[in-house]
Amino acid sequence: MAQRLEAFATFGAYGKSGVWRTLYSPEWVDATDQFADWCIGAGLAVNRDSVGNVWGRLEGSEGGKSIVSGSHIDTVTPGGRYDGALGTIGALIAIEALAEQSGKPKRTLEAVALCEEESSRFRANFWGSRAIIGKIAPEVPDQIVGFDGITISDAMREVGLDPELCYQARRRDIDAFIELHIEQGPVLEAADCSVALVTGIAGLRGITITLEGVANHAGAFPMQQRKDPVAGFAEIVSGVIGIAKEMGSPAVTTIGRVNVEPNLATIIPGKVEFTIDARHADSDELKCMITRQDELMNEVAARLGLSLSAHVTSQHEACVSDPELMVELECAAGTAKVNPIKMVSGAAHDTQQISKIARTAMIFVRSQGGRSHTPEEFSSLDDIVDGIKVLAGTLHRLAY
Amino acid sequence: MAQRLEAFATFGAYGKSGVWRTLYSPEWVDATDQFADWCIGAGLAVNRDSVGNVWGRLEGSEGGKSIVSGSHIDTVTPGGRYDGALGTIGALIAIEALAEQSGKPKRTLEAVALCEEESSRFRANFWGSRAIIGKIAPEVPDQIVGFDGITISDAMREVGLDPELCYQARRRDIDAFIELHIEQGPVLEAADCSVALVTGIAGLRGITITLEGVANHAGAFPMQQRKDPVAGFAEIVSGVIGIAKEMGSPAVTTIGRVNVEPNLATIIPGKVEFTIDARHADSDELKCMITRQDELMNEVAARLGLSLSAHVTSQHEACVSDPELMVELECAAGTAKVNPIKMVSGAAHDTQQISKIARTAMIFVRSQGGRSHTPEEFSSLDDIVDGIKVLAGTLHRLAY
Repeated sequence: MAQRLEAFATFGAYGKSGVWRTLYSPEWVDATDQFADWCIGAGLAVNRDSVGNVWGRLEGSEGGKSIVSGSHIDTVTPGGRYDGALGTIGALIAIEALAEQSGKPKRTLEAVALCEEESSRFRANFWGSRAIIGKIAPEVPDQIVGFDGITISDAMREVGLDPELCYQARRRDIDAFIELHIEQGPVLEAADCSVALVTGIAGLRGITITLEGVANHAGAFPMQQRKDPVAGFAEIVSGVIGIAKEMGSPAVTTIGRVNVEPNLATIIPGKVEFTIDARHADSDELKCMITRQDELMNEVAARLGLSLSAHVTSQHEACVSDPELMVELECAAGTAKVNPIKMVSGAAHDTQQISKIARTAMIFVRSQGGRSHTPEEFSSLDDIVDGIKVLAGTLHRLAY
Repeated sequence: MAQRLEAFATFGAYGKSGVWRTLYSPEWVDATDQFADWCIGAGLAVNRDSVGNVWGRLEGSEGGKSIVSGSHIDTVTPGGRYDGALGTIGALIAIEALAEQSGKPKRTLEAVALCEEESSRFRANFWGSRAIIGKIAPEVPDQIVGFDGITISDAMREVGLDPELCYQARRRDIDAFIELHIEQGPVLEAADCSVALVTGIAGLRGITITLEGVANHAGAFPMQQRKDPVAGFAEIVSGVIGIAKEMGSPAVTTIGRVNVEPNLATIIPGKVEFTIDARHADSDELKCMITRQDELMNEVAARLGLSLSAHVTSQHEACVSDPELMVELECAAGTAKVNPIKMVSGAAHDTQQISKIARTAMIFVRSQGGRSHTPEEFSSLDDIVDGIKVLAGTLHRLAY
């Protein structure tokens, strides 16, 4: 496992421990070739679908729908060696070990390397998994322009894919999907545990708020006559964060992007644009949080004489892991003598997409310092082995 | 007056009513030439000093120190027709009228066009007035690089000035300086008055604060484990604004510039850098406000586990108008049948610099909507005439 993670990290190596691997780049192509080679070496039949997901298939004797595991192989820019790669290589290693130790399964097992989970090159996250569930409209590849100015269509053609055939990636024969992934947070470290079984993935609403007041001279305008959007912004930030804290874990709310105009020290700003990312694993609780936050924002804007407009930029339903799969994961953990905790994923994952067409669950491996999306992200080999044991055990219970 | 303001606005005309006139630019040179021509036409002796201030002098029969009025002729980018230009042309018109109506004065009268009050081309505000009070060190013209990448030294040479001679602009023979200026705020409009006599100019402290936490995944990090500098920023903004409001007018506090890193919607920011501009016309009250704001910031940072560093970027002492000059202004206003209010200037002015070597006072003219630093700034001709009447009357009382 360690060698494979290291070898895989050479495709798009960035500095000492970083990886910079964006969709349809030469290093991404090399990584897919490597994954395909490893699949072939493990005796799996390789299939590259029409958007670039790579599938390694171990045919079951009884046919039927597949049991699938995998994750993504694109990274943030720059990211580390574990986010995505761990679950992709982990799935392959688990199936390879099962094939060696237990031979041909009854049910078909597949390992998959998914593409563009991160939106690193194109504002098109979950590109691979959305293709699998049939959620990419025909016009989309021409419409989405990457940060390098190239459309997805052109980037696909450059690597030999036909953007008109995206629809062919649709799968209707997946029974269960189990994703192994690093936690990307500090919960496992705080609990002193190597592995978590993920009970669900938080739903989220991302919005961009524009708060407008009147720009004026910082000295000449008395406080009482100001319409200062930064004052309103501050009240809103404290308020929406306060609501998330009051609701308690797993509610989270983040103000990640803030742009002020004209952004000069001696001018009362005229406009603040900012994002609010609100998440909760329970759909009803998420709705409740969002409603309270929206009410608070409108109250602040009205009271301070500011105009407020909101634009929803992303919305994902909360996703609950399949109860039967959770039982299998727990049994497998028990057999492997791993003592996992159960937790909710605050981060979004491909699993959330695939849950629309299959039973899903996830396994988390502890992240050192809770860090991810950085070359410094790290998970120990011991922890990784625990995660793969639980994954392999579960696949064995489901497929043999 | 209206014609001259209009003619003057053609030097650096920007759109319909805007002006974009930066120090030592060709349009600035044209404006100084125009001012000098008008001075000559009014019978004044013209002197251009070593930094580019232009002086029009009406010699008094008794000699002695001068009675001076004027303002700056550079603009923000873009600014309007009134900020600075009003006080420059207003001084000339007042002295021209006095010379016509009352002949040679006892005391010498001067009208002056000052340069780079705004920091529009160089981070060197009050350049002209600082030269007059002898506050420009010899090495400075070489050190300050403009927003266009050119040093003040090179820009001076381009317009025929010798940067090594800045010290020659020093004046030791100014008795009184009276500046006519647009209010740049909404106070006169709210009071339904054309003119204000300015009792003092607010002192200010400008600081840049850097608040550092730890950047992390917006979904995967529970609220309790975050070190979110935006949360701290919000508390600080509400706190420092609250202190200014509580202290009451003329205390003001503005957060004008905010930069967040990495500034992505799904990442808890690691760093927020922002400015705080705090002003008060009473030095002791300003100190008190700053002390309370600093304590509040440190408390918030410590409580949220954030590191805070502060860098003072500007500091001006509050400046109180000369009591005797204020009496002359009031008498002149009474004679002219103008009913001015008295108010403090929250905005900084050249007067603040010149107060270090002379008795000073200011006259404000109402700004429509309180607006300035924009092509839309406007003051009516009636209001302007009221302001010039008070100025001319005061100069008459002082010089004849």
